[in-house]
Amino acid sequence: MADASPTSLAGYEFDRATAVRPGPEPGVATVELDPTFAVGPKVHGGYLLAVLGRAAVDAATSAGASHPHVVAATATYLGSPDPGPATVEAEVLRIGRTATHVRTVLRQGGQTAIDATLILGVLPTPDDDGAAPTWSSVTPFDVAPREVCIRATSDNPMGFLVHINDRIDLRLDPASMRWTAGDPSGRGDLRGWISFPDDRPIDPLALLLFVDALPPPTFDVWPSGWVPTMALTTYLRAIPAPGPLRARVLAQHLGSGRVDEVCELWDSEDRLVAQATQIASIRLPEGTELPPYPR
Amino acid sequence: MADASPTSLAGYEFDRATAVRPGPEPGVATVELDPTFAVGPKVHGGYLLAVLGRAAVDAATSAGASHPHVVAATATYLGSPDPGPATVEAEVLRIGRTATHVRTVLRQGGQTAIDATLILGVLPTPDDDGAAPTWSSVTPFDVAPREVCIRATSDNPMGFLVHINDRIDLRLDPASMRWTAGDPSGRGDLRGWISFPDDRPIDPLALLLFVDALPPPTFDVWPSGWVPTMALTTYLRAIPAPGPLRARVLAQHLGSGRVDEVCELWDSEDRLVAQATQIASIRLPEGTELPPYPR
Repeated sequence: MADASPTSLAGYEFDRATAVRPGPEPGVATVELDPTFAVGPKVHGGYLLAVLGRAAVDAATSAGASHPHVVAATATYLGSPDPGPATVEAEVLRIGRTATHVRTVLRQGGQTAIDATLILGVLPTPDDDGAAPTWSSVTPFDVAPREVCIRATSDNPMGFLVHINDRIDLRLDPASMRWTAGDPSGRGDLRGWISFPDDRPIDPLALLLFVDALPPPTFDVWPSGWVPTMALTTYLRAIPAPGPLRARVLAQHLGSGRVDEVCELWDSEDRLVAQATQIASIRLPEGTELPPYPR
Repeated sequence: MADASPTSLAGYEFDRATAVRPGPEPGVATVELDPTFAVGPKVHGGYLLAVLGRAAVDAATSAGASHPHVVAATATYLGSPDPGPATVEAEVLRIGRTATHVRTVLRQGGQTAIDATLILGVLPTPDDDGAAPTWSSVTPFDVAPREVCIRATSDNPMGFLVHINDRIDLRLDPASMRWTAGDPSGRGDLRGWISFPDDRPIDPLALLLFVDALPPPTFDVWPSGWVPTMALTTYLRAIPAPGPLRARVLAQHLGSGRVDEVCELWDSEDRLVAQATQIASIRLPEGTELPPYPR
């Protein structure tokens, strides 16, 4: 596996964009939110979670905890920050034997943008024999070989730039691209491969970005417009083996203007490395109607 | 639908046990944690979430919000409270047009036991024509008719009293009972029907209890011992129609001593009313080994 120490990673785009620096007040770090880890004018939600993950690990390490990895993160999104300066408060709530708990709050312009609680622990490495899954009812999903998948670009027919697609290397299964031609499959299911264009190793912090990095799976049902995350829960299960990850997002249930979506990431050795669920608001574009149900 | 106003509910067991009262400090309520909403000597996690839900709704109402229902709750469990007095802090983070955000913290003996952020809004009622689901990729699961299901009792072969089973009316599908005879199905899948024994109407606060009220689905894999919740995320989707709910918990992935579980609750009119996911620790009983994988 590539060296994934903070020092060796410092030159990558993702690490520059998620750098948190001690601020003037104790327990409050500062971050410069990157305008290219963004969708249109707004900073990307998975990127923000990675910023909070980094701040949580820093705070836990400073407090003497020996739990280097985010194991679970529950984040509530109260606002949509703009690129530019923001602060991150990280409060270590408890250091236990197997886990450290950290609450983080991202603020911008005096407003709370995200409130997240993270559980830190130790994740199994690809070489960790004792850390194979013991039992599972989930199996890897099918996805077309990466070489026939199509890279998602920042330019797209929705009328705003999906800048984040230049910061990640997301290749969608052709079967997950029908919505771009106005012919969604109706299944609410998008699949592909994800990695970094600059070949940065995929560590737990990168997983926090990737669980929210695919297009909204509602695009595979009908053109839903902006689908802002209300709350995002992520479980990290293992440190990925080298290579791009397989990624899938599935829309589950849409009602009363809200939809829940689940995401899974699997590594090159068929190990489930991350799971996420989110509930998001549906903002219909002017003049658009929801499809009939059941479809 | 039965009258579900706070006044009319005050006489039910669940409402007495979850009553939160203003404390001496502003923003801090007190609660007497009920020894019968418990598993062995420890208070039940879903019951605690319902207590926090009630405190959040109270705080939001006092602050002038018109969002009476919990729509999403993300809770991190740092400790296992005992029955007896505890405090609940509820801080309204933001009152928006469609949602109010409240952070709650339950403390006992100076220790933080749960840190939870709740999103409040408005849920559709059974009579709300405009609130039918618009699209869904999930369908109700099969479960045996309630009359052939078997009521879960507080007395059980695990060596401690599951008191909560006297406070809920949980009837498990016979196919979900094999673990009680030492013959788990290996599917990690438990299904049944859930309601209150005193016929209390099932409102959103009750859903917060019910999403964590089935036995751990790992029991359907092998005798896993205590499976304490690390983090629990709940999405409420609708106010249930009258009658018992169908409930299902499924274990998904077990590795490195942690398992994730998903839960769904459906009402008598085939409406999905609640979804939950949790990640929990596996504490193996002395001398027990995990089953081989894949099974």
